Amino acid sequence: MKSFSYYNPTRIEFGEKKEELIGNIIAGYGVKKVLVVYGSERINKDGLFKTVADSLTANGITFYELGGVQSNPVLSKVYEGIELAKKYNVEAVLAVGGGSVLDSVKAIATGACYDGDVWDFFTFKAAATKALLIFDIITLAATGSEMNNFAVVTNEQTKEKFSLINPANYPKVSIINPVLQATVTKEYLTYSAADIFAHCLDMYFSASYLPGYIAGYVENILTTVIRTTNILIENPADYEARGEFAWAATQALNFTTFCGVENNRFDTHFIEHTLSAEYNIAHGAGLSIVVPAWLKYQKNSMPERFERFATNVFSTEGADAGIEALVAWYKKIGTPVTLQEGNIPESDIPMLVEKLRAVASMWGGEELYTREMIQAILGLCR
Amino acid sequence: MKSFSYYNPTRIEFGEKKEELIGNIIAGYGVKKVLVVYGSERINKDGLFKTVADSLTANGITFYELGGVQSNPVLSKVYEGIELAKKYNVEAVLAVGGGSVLDSVKAIATGACYDGDVWDFFTFKAAATKALLIFDIITLAATGSEMNNFAVVTNEQTKEKFSLINPANYPKVSIINPVLQATVTKEYLTYSAADIFAHCLDMYFSASYLPGYIAGYVENILTTVIRTTNILIENPADYEARGEFAWAATQALNFTTFCGVENNRFDTHFIEHTLSAEYNIAHGAGLSIVVPAWLKYQKNSMPERFERFATNVFSTEGADAGIEALVAWYKKIGTPVTLQEGNIPESDIPMLVEKLRAVASMWGGEELYTREMIQAILGLCR
Repeated sequence: MKSFSYYNPTRIEFGEKKEELIGNIIAGYGVKKVLVVYGSERINKDGLFKTVADSLTANGITFYELGGVQSNPVLSKVYEGIELAKKYNVEAVLAVGGGSVLDSVKAIATGACYDGDVWDFFTFKAAATKALLIFDIITLAATGSEMNNFAVVTNEQTKEKFSLINPANYPKVSIINPVLQATVTKEYLTYSAADIFAHCLDMYFSASYLPGYIAGYVENILTTVIRTTNILIENPADYEARGEFAWAATQALNFTTFCGVENNRFDTHFIEHTLSAEYNIAHGAGLSIVVPAWLKYQKNSMPERFERFATNVFSTEGADAGIEALVAWYKKIGTPVTLQEGNIPESDIPMLVEKLRAVASMWGGEELYTREMIQAILGLCR
Repeated sequence: MKSFSYYNPTRIEFGEKKEELIGNIIAGYGVKKVLVVYGSERINKDGLFKTVADSLTANGITFYELGGVQSNPVLSKVYEGIELAKKYNVEAVLAVGGGSVLDSVKAIATGACYDGDVWDFFTFKAAATKALLIFDIITLAATGSEMNNFAVVTNEQTKEKFSLINPANYPKVSIINPVLQATVTKEYLTYSAADIFAHCLDMYFSASYLPGYIAGYVENILTTVIRTTNILIENPADYEARGEFAWAATQALNFTTFCGVENNRFDTHFIEHTLSAEYNIAHGAGLSIVVPAWLKYQKNSMPERFERFATNVFSTEGADAGIEALVAWYKKIGTPVTLQEGNIPESDIPMLVEKLRAVASMWGGEELYTREMIQAILGLCR
């Protein structure tokens, strides 16, 4: 185990009907005014919005609304939220939706405490340390945003999809009710599975040191995701599988997988963010295209780890067989595995390489992400 | 996954030399005066006490000392600490030692904020909610006390070993430096391994519902403990193994193993606490005596789980083989597996049964822990 600091102060309230507690929970923090942010119409379908509104009102909390957040959430919507938050002087922001809604909320909560442009924090021009209080009712399990301080937002003007890290961005309380996640489409369920996988694999196959305990910990997340995704494709209403899927998603990016690990990177996320910024494809779909190529690119650099992965996650033997089993599983659940399947022209590769180089140079990653490396990985996405 | 709340605000600082930061860390909380509590002479052996003292002094913190905490920590020492904490009006208590020292510190921190007898909290006469700030440098991995709000203390007058739970008892910061744990004797290493095992198995084999994710999570802790204990017996200085062992210990009782689980109990801990209160045997030694008996007692109640355990933890097949493999491992590492090996006369069983019944009745556990059940389990400790 290498040296690390671990601190995760988010309180999780997991289970059926926990969303009914939201007003009481937020009132417990002395909040009087909250901005409620949501995305699609799914929030109304199951009466969730009414439940939230009633609970807030019953607890004496005034709320303002911002709807219409989309997948690959955009900066213009964040600006709208910041304006509302400042105008009404809210003390907290509540996300009711998936990772895109919560990431928007984190950016709004940060931007509302800053006089400049919130994009400054995404482009390393300023370091974020303050935020309004953040709460969420997470209706799609994938990003792990409910138990971390990350947010990813797309600047639709510049086609840049960048990350915000703010120590004040841990949600105070996250509500995870598997029932509310049962209405996710099959397509988004599988994209979510691919996202969770990539959170795990980015770490697993990039770390220069991976303790056995953490390897086993991550393998357990992966096998849980495979098992529960397979169940949920057949039976979306399976509460137990939905619950385990949701909890695996949370664990995959709440920093527990990084404890004691050395030099882990987010290679596939780094590449995919530019794909989804450019083509607005679903993040999970982009990841299932990039991950196999990335694995093929570097399988010879850590043969033992690839063998371990093959054995412990897919019960097969050898690096190639492990990668093949992963690709076969992506195909089985129906996520794309080539640029072509993602409707991304291979002729765009040179342009994508330059964009990725520009992003890397922003934070000093030019040596890590060489032109040759990016080109090779994108070239293997077929 | 059944409904649950999870909140664990302890910050972990893991790694070599992290203890040098202690003064800076504590000063960050605005603390000016701290009571430093420790146990044996081991704290001086490696210069640890001097490092701590220098760091506190360099950060303008005045400290007072309380040494001599022993294994199975006693109430009289806690009273001493409370008196000192009140006398010097300290804002924080720092544990430098193992679980016994930290548990004493939690009791002191709680008792210093209470006008009555701190034992009231152990006997359910009062509910604890306040505490001084708690910090620790943990020099023995076993109890998981560094990332939970439990404390176990023995009232040596009444020979009662009871637990304290206080939401304010999560350490603010816990420092885990594997190097500082390398001087633990082989005997205590193996008792620690048995303690971690029991934390896991108490949950694993008592829960009326155990999600697959959590089962796999716990099995990974168990296989890590087996692997690293075997290494450390041969080579106590193996830093990597020591680190994984330490982190597995923390994870085994930081409440992550309880997430989504239903009706888990602490059966072997319940029984063992009375054994160590009565005979002052090491907690881990008592547990390796009780665990096999408890498993034999209830192996027919959850055959699938016993089979899973045998396969995933000991690579063998069937409930009996799994229990036998566990006993063989206890014998291999040298922990006792019978009352006789623990120097506990079998003729004391009737007295122990009555004591355990009395403890259970204190919190309404008479129906759960029947005379027949306790007698049967103790009778199987051979």
